[in-house]
Amino acid sequence: MKKDVLILIGSKSDQEIARAATDVLDELGIGWDLEISSAHRHPDKTDALARGAVDKGYRVIICLAGMAAHLPGVVASRSNLPVIGVPVAATLGGIDAVLSMVQMPPGIPVATVGVGQAGAKNGAVLAARILGLSDDGIRQRHRQYRDSL
Amino acid sequence: MKKDVLILIGSKSDQEIARAATDVLDELGIGWDLEISSAHRHPDKTDALARGAVDKGYRVIICLAGMAAHLPGVVASRSNLPVIGVPVAATLGGIDAVLSMVQMPPGIPVATVGVGQAGAKNGAVLAARILGLSDDGIRQRHRQYRDSL
Amino acid sequence: MKKDVLILIGSKSDQEIARAATDVLDELGIGWDLEISSAHRHPDKTDALARGAVDKGYRVIICLAGMAAHLPGVVASRSNLPVIGVPVAATLGGIDAVLSMVQMPPGIPVATVGVGQAGAKNGAVLAARILGLSDDGIRQRHRQYRDSL
Amino acid sequence: MKKDVLILIGSKSDQEIARAATDVLDELGIGWDLEISSAHRHPDKTDALARGAVDKGYRVIICLAGMAAHLPGVVASRSNLPVIGVPVAATLGGIDAVLSMVQMPPGIPVATVGVGQAGAKNGAVLAARILGLSDDGIRQRHRQYRDSL
Amino acid sequence: MKKDVLILIGSKSDQEIARAATDVLDELGIGWDLEISSAHRHPDKTDALARGAVDKGYRVIICLAGMAAHLPGVVASRSNLPVIGVPVAATLGGIDAVLSMVQMPPGIPVATVGVGQAGAKNGAVLAARILGLSDDGIRQRHRQYRDSL
Amino acid sequence: MKKDVLILIGSKSDQEIARAATDVLDELGIGWDLEISSAHRHPDKTDALARGAVDKGYRVIICLAGMAAHLPGVVASRSNLPVIGVPVAATLGGIDAVLSMVQMPPGIPVATVGVGQAGAKNGAVLAARILGLSDDGIRQRHRQYRDSL
Amino acid sequence: MKKDVLILIGSKSDQEIARAATDVLDELGIGWDLEISSAHRHPDKTDALARGAVDKGYRVIICLAGMAAHLPGVVASRSNLPVIGVPVAATLGGIDAVLSMVQMPPGIPVATVGVGQAGAKNGAVLAARILGLSDDGIRQRHRQYRDSL
Amino acid sequence: MKKDVLILIGSKSDQEIARAATDVLDELGIGWDLEISSAHRHPDKTDALARGAVDKGYRVIICLAGMAAHLPGVVASRSNLPVIGVPVAATLGGIDAVLSMVQMPPGIPVATVGVGQAGAKNGAVLAARILGLSDDGIRQRHRQYRDSL
Repeated sequence: MKKDVLILIGSKSDQEIARAATDVLDELGIGWDLEISSAHRHPDKTDALARGAVDKGYRVIICLAGMAAHLPGVVASRSNLPVIGVPVAATLGGIDAVLSMVQMPPGIPVATVGVGQAGAKNGAVLAARILGLSDDGIRQRHRQYRDSL
Repeated sequence: MKKDVLILIGSKSDQEIARAATDVLDELGIGWDLEISSAHRHPDKTDALARGAVDKGYRVIICLAGMAAHLPGVVASRSNLPVIGVPVAATLGGIDAVLSMVQMPPGIPVATVGVGQAGAKNGAVLAARILGLSDDGIRQRHRQYRDSL
Repeated sequence: MKKDVLILIGSKSDQEIARAATDVLDELGIGWDLEISSAHRHPDKTDALARGAVDKGYRVIICLAGMAAHLPGVVASRSNLPVIGVPVAATLGGIDAVLSMVQMPPGIPVATVGVGQAGAKNGAVLAARILGLSDDGIRQRHRQYRDSL
Repeated sequence: MKKDVLILIGSKSDQEIARAATDVLDELGIGWDLEISSAHRHPDKTDALARGAVDKGYRVIICLAGMAAHLPGVVASRSNLPVIGVPVAATLGGIDAVLSMVQMPPGIPVATVGVGQAGAKNGAVLAARILGLSDDGIRQRHRQYRDSL
Repeated sequence: MKKDVLILIGSKSDQEIARAATDVLDELGIGWDLEISSAHRHPDKTDALARGAVDKGYRVIICLAGMAAHLPGVVASRSNLPVIGVPVAATLGGIDAVLSMVQMPPGIPVATVGVGQAGAKNGAVLAARILGLSDDGIRQRHRQYRDSL
Repeated sequence: MKKDVLILIGSKSDQEIARAATDVLDELGIGWDLEISSAHRHPDKTDALARGAVDKGYRVIICLAGMAAHLPGVVASRSNLPVIGVPVAATLGGIDAVLSMVQMPPGIPVATVGVGQAGAKNGAVLAARILGLSDDGIRQRHRQYRDSL
Repeated sequence: MKKDVLILIGSKSDQEIARAATDVLDELGIGWDLEISSAHRHPDKTDALARGAVDKGYRVIICLAGMAAHLPGVVASRSNLPVIGVPVAATLGGIDAVLSMVQMPPGIPVATVGVGQAGAKNGAVLAARILGLSDDGIRQRHRQYRDSL
Repeated sequence: MKKDVLILIGSKSDQEIARAATDVLDELGIGWDLEISSAHRHPDKTDALARGAVDKGYRVIICLAGMAAHLPGVVASRSNLPVIGVPVAATLGGIDAVLSMVQMPPGIPVATVGVGQAGAKNGAVLAARILGLSDDGIRQRHRQYRDSL
């Protein structure tokens, strides 16, 4: 199966929330890979994943991150693919991660969705909307998903 | 010229900020239309624009809105296209609009970018990233734009 | 019994908090109906409920919603009845919903009350104050309720 | 002309913003009186105005207040009429006034609208929606106002 | 024993936190009375307690309140005694109550201390500092309390 | 004239706001001294002023401070007099100073009033309420001041 | 073993979080002492610890504090060593402590890191980065620690 | 002159605020270089500057950044030197940049100081404290600077 979506999380502790995204991707028949790669503790791995994403055939990257939550911004600065950011709540409740994703400098956007599991689901649905522009199967399955809500 | 992007603003007062987006779209050779349609004062017009967007050939919708900033959410609930939200600062500084866009319910995402002009530019660049997945010309022009930053 | 109040909630998970409102309405002898209709997942149902509210005899609409909390605003844009918004706390604690209800654009007000159960009670009492302007029974029962606090 | 609305402001400095409300009331053909009465510097005057409002024929009370913004809450605790609160921005930008109005204790609601001039307009429109329930003229003029937005 | 301090709470649910204040007052040998009187649900009782406080010999009033937290402000507007406000955390975490106490209009101050139990203790200690200006026993016992920290 | 109040500001830039306090003290016939002493840049001077305040006859200390705003807390930890804190707005709008004054640890209270000039006035009035407990002249002048509001 | 780092906490309740820092220091082979000394309840002890730190051979001071969190600022004003502040979450979630540390007046910096245990770890790592500038062993062990993340 | 400090800013618009830092460094006789390098628009340049800093002899890196403000975090993840972050205010007032610097993940600290010019000065002073640990001249000049405050 073609893997359209690369999911990045900064630490194992975000795996639970990432599942809210992968469950939706599975339901929509969208292939994905998940990698654990912190923007700051594994800068080289993150750099390589971001720069290599296009060549591996990924078309959308979803990053989950909490606190300073630089992961999606760092990835967006090293890839030209659409990058979706899912803020994860930690010591300050998630507002830190929201602002750190939304307020990217001009030229390097992160498509930010909501905090936590609801946001992770929306990250997956946003990927489906994007991929559906050029993939009829995904577009149809997304429409059915919408109708089923 | 093909019009890939539909830009919606809720009131004339947001036109100045919208120009930050249209300038980038022009630079990237992406066609666009702009409509003034408040989610709340013109619900029927907004509804029609959202539902008719696909048939008119639009592929991405960018909504600028301030305060309660429901516009992108209302559009996203009536279209399956990717919807980008640009929060605009008003009486409470823009945090109201950020939260109102980011925190959409599961199933109906808004791809939120930053507040004001910087956000409007990023809304346009995000559209380019999305459109570039299936349009070689946009993808190349976006790459050149990135290199020129 | 005449049904003066239409209560709308966006998802089943808000039913518990809605009960804080319906308990007060029952105590005040005010008839009500409750519908589950998300502003974004069920836009057509919400549209129909809002536009049809007057003809069904409702005089006040109470909407409970969390996160982006567009429900009362969407309803207020499709009905001329007084619309009361009750913010519900979720991942960001409720401030997102408060701002999204309060900061409606000029011309389309949402009468916002407090967060959660205390707010739901107050939504019901506010409905009683409004209905009591033209219904002597409700006005008297509200006065007794006040005296009993 | 019948005076349906009593507008209270805590200090002269709020008169400018109050005009945003009175302009809308005038346009909707709703009679009003305006009194300057601080909840805290003139507690007895405020008490008398609140308790006497029904007997003077007022049906809705609109209070504009900034900072701690207790005025609408104090009035709501001394009257059974619907009380609308309009938060006014001061040293902390208005969020203090929003929270102080919204978060009233169970039993004594304040119908809070947005900050500043946009909020003042919405306070007037909300009054029209409430009064329109039992006044055909106001209801029709409000509908025309809506259509003109 | 002379009762120098009147403690007011708006509802029974604040009794637990009030005990943090009364424990300190007891330790400092300061007499107190506690009354439950909501600023909004019992405006007349609150009014009478505030206006009658001087004649009953109270010299400092401590008010605990959450959410809109108008109690200390309402009391300060009806008494010339020093009024201490202790914010109590509720649905929005206590920041609502802090702002509603601190941001009183010019002329009617509330001496605001911290949120919850730590704040309640500090309300009692602040009372001791104030009373100690004219009561040698309290001043000495407060000094010993300080030394014991 | 007896000097009851010591006013401390951390830098010359706060003198303008301090005048809002001294004008009220003058109007109430309360003597005061003002010293510029930063809690952090002049720790020894601040320490000496705080520890020596009682012996110089001061009975209340008012501290104006912005940003981290430690001044009133540092003074309160070195004096047993009532210490009033007036938050001053700077880069983050004043909320930083409010929280830094209100949230003192148990045992060392700062009586916090509002932000900026309105808060400075209230600091002076709070001093008058405290001093009026044992000074008939101040109590009477404060009552007249209240009546004149 | 040489003790390079002095850790100060304001109360016993912060010992648990301090352990997150001491565990990292131990792992990096950096000697430390821990003292409990509140900036406000033990001003003299804190003063002595801060002023005596250089003579005892300490080279970096780490302060953990919650709420008003003045401890690192007070220490930085009495020592010329680098002072690291670790905000601890309490009634308002930790944002109070963050702002109270970050917003120090010009001339007296506190090197602020994140809230709670993650911040405590980072305080230790920041100390290692600073000490590593002139201590080859610490520099090497820090590099190994980085590689092990 | 030896250059101990590398200053990085993300865009020319931060040069004005950077001058507040360089003025202090000049006064303290600390050599510095300034480079404009956005974490996101110039990832490779930023990467090279961070990784090459030690070899060029820099001992402390100061990063000024606004909005998402990832610059210091990205640099800290690619260098083992102490990295100081100075948040710059933009559309959301600076709180976004504060949180994005403070809340770094465990293992990669950013030593965050205050917002804007006051913060930039403190970034320079913090560098002096750190460098002074192993440079007698800087330590002495810092002490004189402290005495002159």
